[in-house]
Amino acid sequence: MNPTTHDRLLADFAAGRKAALARAISIVENHRPGFEEVLAWCHPRTGRSRRIGLTGPPGAGKSTLTTCLTRAYRASGLTVGIIAVDPTSPFTGGALLGDRIRMEDVALDPGVYIRSLATRGSLGGLSAATRETCDVLDAFGIDRIIIETVGVGQSELDVARMADTSVVVLVPESGDAIQTLKAGLMEIADIFTVNKADRPGADRLRNEIEIMLGMRSGALQQNVPAHHGVDLSRNNLVRQVREAAQSDTADAWTPPVLRTVAAKDEGIAELVGALDRHFGYLERSGRLRERRLARLRERVVEVVEDKTRRRLWADAGTNAWLEARLPELERGEATPFGIADALLARSADLLTRTS
Amino acid sequence: MNPTTHDRLLADFAAGRKAALARAISIVENHRPGFEEVLAWCHPRTGRSRRIGLTGPPGAGKSTLTTCLTRAYRASGLTVGIIAVDPTSPFTGGALLGDRIRMEDVALDPGVYIRSLATRGSLGGLSAATRETCDVLDAFGIDRIIIETVGVGQSELDVARMADTSVVVLVPESGDAIQTLKAGLMEIADIFTVNKADRPGADRLRNEIEIMLGMRSGALQQNVPAHHGVDLSRNNLVRQVREAAQSDTADAWTPPVLRTVAAKDEGIAELVGALDRHFGYLERSGRLRERRLARLRERVVEVVEDKTRRRLWADAGTNAWLEARLPELERGEATPFGIADALLARSADLLTRTS
Repeated sequence: MNPTTHDRLLADFAAGRKAALARAISIVENHRPGFEEVLAWCHPRTGRSRRIGLTGPPGAGKSTLTTCLTRAYRASGLTVGIIAVDPTSPFTGGALLGDRIRMEDVALDPGVYIRSLATRGSLGGLSAATRETCDVLDAFGIDRIIIETVGVGQSELDVARMADTSVVVLVPESGDAIQTLKAGLMEIADIFTVNKADRPGADRLRNEIEIMLGMRSGALQQNVPAHHGVDLSRNNLVRQVREAAQSDTADAWTPPVLRTVAAKDEGIAELVGALDRHFGYLERSGRLRERRLARLRERVVEVVEDKTRRRLWADAGTNAWLEARLPELERGEATPFGIADALLARSADLLTRTS
Repeated sequence: MNPTTHDRLLADFAAGRKAALARAISIVENHRPGFEEVLAWCHPRTGRSRRIGLTGPPGAGKSTLTTCLTRAYRASGLTVGIIAVDPTSPFTGGALLGDRIRMEDVALDPGVYIRSLATRGSLGGLSAATRETCDVLDAFGIDRIIIETVGVGQSELDVARMADTSVVVLVPESGDAIQTLKAGLMEIADIFTVNKADRPGADRLRNEIEIMLGMRSGALQQNVPAHHGVDLSRNNLVRQVREAAQSDTADAWTPPVLRTVAAKDEGIAELVGALDRHFGYLERSGRLRERRLARLRERVVEVVEDKTRRRLWADAGTNAWLEARLPELERGEATPFGIADALLARSADLLTRTS
């Protein structure tokens, strides 16, 4: 990108032109020339958006919920960015496309910006692309960014690390709350919502999650003496967990477990309310700054690793040197570890040059 | 690991003791102390196993097919290693566990070694762990290694890069062959099999894949003049693709599209035959050496990136330095790119020391 084009893009971007936003995101997403400059320009302008992560198993209705949330925020005059992250292959990713189509009504709203990220690159790459897209949307002045991801493997944890607030969406059919625990979601969820809550099993799932949350936070241990053992009925446990949750102080947050029926637009006000309460808690407790500092730290780590990789493997000399060592490696006279050490030993200038 | 324990482990390993194999794999998989030594010891002993990748959508019957293949190889007196790679979260990974149970009959065979890899680490980490486990099995003298993965995102491509031969398993229900194309599987498949081929739609799927393969390889363009346009019926196209496939020379391989019904043990001999033919082709054409050299190269890249990461982020000084820069970053006075450059600039000794 030549300096003039670059300056014009950033001027248009600063003037709030949506075409410039789309262009900036494309440059960043595909790491086209000038992407570092765009991101560096965006960096001091970030920090105003609230970033909301939405994750859960396929079919939980995350996209419908995203649509409902978007409508609610738009009704309050807030602009919304939606990043749909799909780390799955086309084999399993078909559902997402359908969801995108259902989202059309909000997509036509000029106060909404939607971007799907589904590169075939590494998951690490996808996570960097998501983080960078968030920064661009944030710098553009978007008020709420919803990062929606299909719950596959590492991705929910990645999204949680990018968001100020993580919402885990479950459905009665997703069954055992134990799955949620195993997936590591208990640790990352700031808010749970049992979506499609008009189906059988919604209350049972909600209770199970609340019990597990109580066990985690120690709320039960504090409130129920271990030797008491009289009224350990589920309802009583749940009641106690709920009471513990009411006592949120600046220093503690117990994830609420909400009920939504996104398809009927039910429970959305409560979800918006819980998101606001959580953001308030983050601000009051200093956790917002902590999370954002942790995110900045991770961002530097990501950039360092990306730069390392590009500096090493874009270098013809390094590749030629490695190529020449392959026969030794093939004959078993050298090991990948020895070659790797030697490669790094000869790459000091390459790795540490400022670019 | 102290030197004595280490020597005893390797002596037991060299003597073919299965407990030593399990122990070595655990050390490598979890990167426990001594893992580099174990892998370095294994490295010159690798290259005898044939590595077979099996991938496809969830529910395609990959595990049943793996069991059938294993039985067939065992009947020929060959030892078999199975690596089941599951990059999905517990939300979607439930099926795999069921499959493992069905695999029990081969699991009890002392000539079979099964390992599931489903770390919650990065996908990159999973791919390195798979490659390393392959090397250990290979060094142990296992004849055939079957790497089975759920077709989710990047993983099929990763597995293809690790295998000598990649088998893509489809089912009539997986429907449109276009999905296969979109998933990038056309490029990586050495052999296709339509499994559950006793169900409706098997022949249609098979034909569609064969037509797409023909289009890719240019077989049709060579055999059917573009202006001919008379008998472009599907059956004629398929016949011509099949004829083109018959003419495999040392320099060309057209992936065969087989039919299997793994649950009834049907078509397994044909699959074993196709695997042998493909391996013969790889040897004759020099592609085997090419693939293995490419694998060694990727292995070095992987080790370099792992070492870089460990050297940088395990260093207290680097972390303290980065921590001290976070406030500037937060205030927007510095960008992640600037900090990353400065971090690398101060890390020359760290990155290039031999460890």
